[in-house]
Amino acid sequence: MRSVVVIGVGMTKFGKFPEIPVEQLGREAARDAMKDAGLGPKDIQVAYLGNLTEGRDTGHNSCVAQEILRGAGLLEIPITRVENACASGSSAFREAWMAVASGFYDIAMAVGVEKLTGRGGAPLGRVGDTIEGVAGLAPPGMWAMRAQKHMAQYGTTVEQLAMVAVKNRRHAKLNPRAALAPKEITIEDVRNSPMIAYPLTLFDSCPTTDGGAAAILCSEELAKRYTTKPVYVGAAALVSGTYKNLRDIAVNELERRASKEAFERAGIGPQDLDLAEVHDCFTIAEIVRIENLGLCPEGEGGRWVASGETQLGGKFPINPSGGLLCKGHPVGATGVAQVAELVWQLRGEARARQVQGAKAGLAHCSGGFIGGDTGASVVIILKR
Amino acid sequence: MRSVVVIGVGMTKFGKFPEIPVEQLGREAARDAMKDAGLGPKDIQVAYLGNLTEGRDTGHNSCVAQEILRGAGLLEIPITRVENACASGSSAFREAWMAVASGFYDIAMAVGVEKLTGRGGAPLGRVGDTIEGVAGLAPPGMWAMRAQKHMAQYGTTVEQLAMVAVKNRRHAKLNPRAALAPKEITIEDVRNSPMIAYPLTLFDSCPTTDGGAAAILCSEELAKRYTTKPVYVGAAALVSGTYKNLRDIAVNELERRASKEAFERAGIGPQDLDLAEVHDCFTIAEIVRIENLGLCPEGEGGRWVASGETQLGGKFPINPSGGLLCKGHPVGATGVAQVAELVWQLRGEARARQVQGAKAGLAHCSGGFIGGDTGASVVIILKR
Repeated sequence: MRSVVVIGVGMTKFGKFPEIPVEQLGREAARDAMKDAGLGPKDIQVAYLGNLTEGRDTGHNSCVAQEILRGAGLLEIPITRVENACASGSSAFREAWMAVASGFYDIAMAVGVEKLTGRGGAPLGRVGDTIEGVAGLAPPGMWAMRAQKHMAQYGTTVEQLAMVAVKNRRHAKLNPRAALAPKEITIEDVRNSPMIAYPLTLFDSCPTTDGGAAAILCSEELAKRYTTKPVYVGAAALVSGTYKNLRDIAVNELERRASKEAFERAGIGPQDLDLAEVHDCFTIAEIVRIENLGLCPEGEGGRWVASGETQLGGKFPINPSGGLLCKGHPVGATGVAQVAELVWQLRGEARARQVQGAKAGLAHCSGGFIGGDTGASVVIILKR
Repeated sequence: MRSVVVIGVGMTKFGKFPEIPVEQLGREAARDAMKDAGLGPKDIQVAYLGNLTEGRDTGHNSCVAQEILRGAGLLEIPITRVENACASGSSAFREAWMAVASGFYDIAMAVGVEKLTGRGGAPLGRVGDTIEGVAGLAPPGMWAMRAQKHMAQYGTTVEQLAMVAVKNRRHAKLNPRAALAPKEITIEDVRNSPMIAYPLTLFDSCPTTDGGAAAILCSEELAKRYTTKPVYVGAAALVSGTYKNLRDIAVNELERRASKEAFERAGIGPQDLDLAEVHDCFTIAEIVRIENLGLCPEGEGGRWVASGETQLGGKFPINPSGGLLCKGHPVGATGVAQVAELVWQLRGEARARQVQGAKAGLAHCSGGFIGGDTGASVVIILKR
């Protein structure tokens, strides 16, 4: 396979934009990435769009990807929408990477976009015909159970959970594209915000968000034309699966397999990374996932966050963008936005939130309901 | 790129099965294909699932592909759902082909599945926020306009339209997996069936259908282990676009570009084909598309059908499976079911509907709303 370079990334501001149509979010992100790469729509040879919720109860009936991307001038090329729940954007990035790595195409675009506000329809958290769904276990309830298990098993505290939100809000304050207002919050603010599902409060949970993100991938050889700061795709690993042991809900073997595969392909290990963007849909999710991904020992996530090492300026910043918790989580856009953050960081263009000297980073998204139900997990590794 | 062989195909019976869940349709098709290839779920390395309508108003919220395929034992591998409207199944096949042709994987599965009956929600034909949508131009109205244009421009008659339905119903009678009851109909039956949108009647239109189909693709080298009748993928071309000339609604440049690209990659021309499965969602669609695909001269589609050459036993059978019109059109499944039909034909296993000595065939699906709106078109060429 050929080496692949990310030559351009783009992103809309994330936020609640009930008046802005999904097409606008998608085309703005795509145009932003083309501007960053210094190329136009005629240069893009294939595109993949990650999106979850466009469907029969929205304005879009079909060919969602074509409808969204034509506004960015992408008209004749192969365009395909991909869906893997919260990992839809990461999956679109993976397909684009494979399309270039294989030699099928030289330049590919991955776009992620989601429009969650200003629409009727079922809440995002509605679960299917599973046991969990019938019991009403939408994501907040599911993650609350995992938090309680983690607290009982490893001594994690509600204050440690809250520190994830405090840290990511501090990071988001430095990110002009983040959804939440640029202000700092305290552990007390998190604990005093409305209880959603014990022990998780409103501030322990990511906000409903609209937004788009895009990345342009290019063969290594051709990339020299477009960038002097190449960021290489080390790996984009996708795995699927169900829980093997339902009693051990704090451990996700999906994420373990995805990170193992990604590190193997990229030829580096966790010790070689300088930062990570992980799927912190709830504060407990960041803690569980940094463990599952092999970034810290099992059970140590809460204490690691409390140590301050995972905040900007610490040894290993986690979610310097603000993460899903504070930058926002427009589902299909999230995985591509993580890639954009890593690219800015690895190019040294992340301004006030720059991780100094960053040479390699990891992005992670998991999708699907993960308590006996199936899911997908994607781990992307980028390096200078 | 490596040569890729289809080593197994499978299909459920198509029909109206309001009581059968989509998971069952998907897993039955997948199992059928694995049985045909003589392998098990552990042998499949990557899978793509084409589906349009699973979404927020169905039981499935997310990770639709994983939820459907786990029942067939596909649990840990990379699984991705793709959507390109009526070309979703064809697009899944294309991704699976690229995954093997590139050398990323040796064995891939493409599944298409759709569940249209037994559910509430908006009708499939609801169009988005386009001018056509506001005017109520769902697919029957759109195709009726194209039929009238074709009749005025080329002298096509309502009897010629009806002959497409008569032919495809005769073919479907020979296909035990077809949705419509095994009986012959006459031109009068078609004209006397309820008018939907002049000149198109009920029998000029494909039925609402549930069903699943699957195909297993393998590198040429490894394929020797699984089959003595290799069917090669000559091409799987995907293009996107809008109408360039709205006045010329009977011509679709999307399909012209897709077939041109497919023939070029496959290294053969229309004269080398023995049969075709084309997207006959309405009788006029078969006529327009055999012209657009380059199978007959522009404007001659109606007269070609009337000549009898496109029926089984004729020089160039079109839709020997019964087509969308009579085999049925479970959206996401359609493109993969076309592949299954071609494989059976090219292996000489199509029984009563066998096209004698068939060596090469074409499958075509187009998706999206195609009157000023965007769409996708996929042309697949298979050969012995």
